[in-house]
Amino acid sequence: MNSQNGCTVWLTGLSGAGKTTLAQVLGERLRERGVGYELLDGDELRDRLSPGLGFSKQERDAHVRRAGYLCELLSRNGVITVAALISPYRAVRDELRARIPDFIEVYVECPLKELVRRDVKGLYRKALAGEIGNFTGVSDPYEPPHDPDVTVHTAEETPDASADRILATLERSGILKEFAAAPL
Amino acid sequence: MNSQNGCTVWLTGLSGAGKTTLAQVLGERLRERGVGYELLDGDELRDRLSPGLGFSKQERDAHVRRAGYLCELLSRNGVITVAALISPYRAVRDELRARIPDFIEVYVECPLKELVRRDVKGLYRKALAGEIGNFTGVSDPYEPPHDPDVTVHTAEETPDASADRILATLERSGILKEFAAAPL
Repeated sequence: MNSQNGCTVWLTGLSGAGKTTLAQVLGERLRERGVGYELLDGDELRDRLSPGLGFSKQERDAHVRRAGYLCELLSRNGVITVAALISPYRAVRDELRARIPDFIEVYVECPLKELVRRDVKGLYRKALAGEIGNFTGVSDPYEPPHDPDVTVHTAEETPDASADRILATLERSGILKEFAAAPL
Repeated sequence: MNSQNGCTVWLTGLSGAGKTTLAQVLGERLRERGVGYELLDGDELRDRLSPGLGFSKQERDAHVRRAGYLCELLSRNGVITVAALISPYRAVRDELRARIPDFIEVYVECPLKELVRRDVKGLYRKALAGEIGNFTGVSDPYEPPHDPDVTVHTAEETPDASADRILATLERSGILKEFAAAPL
């Protein structure tokens, strides 16, 4: 059996809010600690689990459920699973929380105004011009968590600081042991 | 990190050939050894990964790819993953073999005549009467593996004997340590 408890750290938030960056920083921290972890990123998940699937509410919910099943299996096998998905609908996220024993919901928050200003991939410009449909935050709703385990404000804090707060939450809940960095 | 190497034991064969029974016996053996394992069974996988999906070649292939992605993630996180799926098409199974480092393909063979005789779920009768379409072995093809790692003949050997041969293969390939049962 695996020597650690698994869990699912579920990062939800708008496109461009910083979910992937935060997941990668979390991954580095978990690697330093020598614990088994897996990063599941929105784009790869779409590609492997739901190729060709669209972005209607029904299709998004189906995809989020699939990704959640994957998290559930990894978690119960002792893997710290970090999943980064827009996952805009509250009900289906709550469904996953009910199913997965250690489900840590992280709301990755960034004001839409700031996202439109950054617009790293140029998607918001296109969505606002009506060139992309079903775009979360513009033409599709985003339902923020009512009671997330952690809220990170990416316009106000660094990914490092956000990662530290998430790790502290995992320590408090007994999923991760407290970590003392090796002295220099 | 996990202390063991993971792998995927992929059971392919016709409906009723004995994949689920064999997976359960394998699971008991793995539990006795104290290794981390997961059983993925066809019906639950369909329900969680592909609800509402049909049985055309394209749909079956999509489902098998999804299930394979799940096996890939579990395997690389040190879990011995036993998947039982009809998975009738050779090309997509070979695709998984190419992707997953320790992929053990097990052909669960049973003559159609014997399956029709047993017909535990009454599905063959219906398929032969034309009441169920896309039924593997009757109205849909089954492509046996060309070079499976293990072939088990469920009409000729017990699930226990089949499980022993699969475990021996895992030991020979270095995935499992040799196991001496505790003396009585």
